[in-house]
Amino acid sequence: MGDSSNVKVLGTWASPFVMRVRIALHLKSVGYEYVEENLLEAKSELLLKSNPVHKKVPVLIHADKPVCESLIIVHYINEVWTSAPSILPSDPYERAASRFWAAYVDDKFFPALRRVLVSSEEDKKAAMAEMLEGAVLLEEAFKKLSGGKAFFGGNDLGYVDLAVGSLLAWIKVIEKFTETEVLSEAKTPSLAAWADCFSSHAAVKDVFPDVDKLADFGMKLRAKFSKAAAATTTSN
Amino acid sequence: MGDSSNVKVLGTWASPFVMRVRIALHLKSVGYEYVEENLLEAKSELLLKSNPVHKKVPVLIHADKPVCESLIIVHYINEVWTSAPSILPSDPYERAASRFWAAYVDDKFFPALRRVLVSSEEDKKAAMAEMLEGAVLLEEAFKKLSGGKAFFGGNDLGYVDLAVGSLLAWIKVIEKFTETEVLSEAKTPSLAAWADCFSSHAAVKDVFPDVDKLADFGMKLRAKFSKAAAATTTSN
Repeated sequence: MGDSSNVKVLGTWASPFVMRVRIALHLKSVGYEYVEENLLEAKSELLLKSNPVHKKVPVLIHADKPVCESLIIVHYINEVWTSAPSILPSDPYERAASRFWAAYVDDKFFPALRRVLVSSEEDKKAAMAEMLEGAVLLEEAFKKLSGGKAFFGGNDLGYVDLAVGSLLAWIKVIEKFTETEVLSEAKTPSLAAWADCFSSHAAVKDVFPDVDKLADFGMKLRAKFSKAAAATTTSN
Repeated sequence: MGDSSNVKVLGTWASPFVMRVRIALHLKSVGYEYVEENLLEAKSELLLKSNPVHKKVPVLIHADKPVCESLIIVHYINEVWTSAPSILPSDPYERAASRFWAAYVDDKFFPALRRVLVSSEEDKKAAMAEMLEGAVLLEEAFKKLSGGKAFFGGNDLGYVDLAVGSLLAWIKVIEKFTETEVLSEAKTPSLAAWADCFSSHAAVKDVFPDVDKLADFGMKLRAKFSKAAAATTTSN
């Protein structure tokens, strides 16, 4: 088992990607120092030095060595702290399926969610339609991967739970903004039940952000992006 | 060790992502049936059924079960056929670094390469600048990861070699189209030397596409995208 001292996480409270890393550490009972970055203001020297390519959180610093990119960090945590539970399934095919759905979340579902929040009114509708389609795909994936248990990972919270679950609070913000259910009893009953299991899990509940506070932050982000878009339009 | 019978790859000759999967199978000496898809015409029923979410090649079908997404397939191959060489390093930190650079290639370097090929004249210049910056970053990464050996993976061709090397023929096409060196003795001497080692490697040389033929295909892709862009503009 890896050394759990000398572990630091650079993060920001509203980031779903940071949440993945923290939950993974909680699952493995690894103690860590959490350093909050304020990305709306200036990035810290430590962040810029630790992730010079992307300059983004989360960064895990373990024994002074930085690891970047949330899903890569989750792999790293799972491989260094090998005690149970395993975050990825032991079977290579099931592991590939987990990686597939986590990649789907990052490559398709999250970009749609982000567009619902910050893009033009016209594109927002298309993005919302993509999100709703994505939720139905994830409902099907849940049925296959969970084997009728509480989590994507079966009895234990696993890799796909981290990937999707980290977006749950933002999904609730979008439901609030748009007055549209993304996860619903009618269309995604399994995911609706899973969402409750996820957000009340011992490894999750302390880092699950307050939805009202997140909605306020979402409004600020939206204003920032509208301003940036207006500036771009003006300079054209 | 996994069973090497009953392995099928759905691919297309010009796809760098398909090349990764084929090279990984060659490295592991796994026999497979290769099925060429013609994506400019119609996609096969088998492809649509095997990858219903993205409908893209490559797909690896092993014992009738499909695995999608090139880097996920490479992980799968490495985990099922565990005989040497290992495609990923054994040390978790080195493994995370390999995953980081492969993700960099897919998230940043490849999109810039693609934009050089198919986007507007104005954006092409910005994309080319991004590619050249990316090449310098990859040169630095090579020095760190290779430990002075021939490959990103050290003495053996590994994960980052697959990620970057699969783009090499397309890089040569871009050098031809733009009359600009992307990999050069002056700016990226290590990568320039590595490129020769990669393309002449026993696991690579039979699937390394002919650059002139690829350039012709690139011209067709470009025409197709210009046409699609013109149609979009017209319908606005």
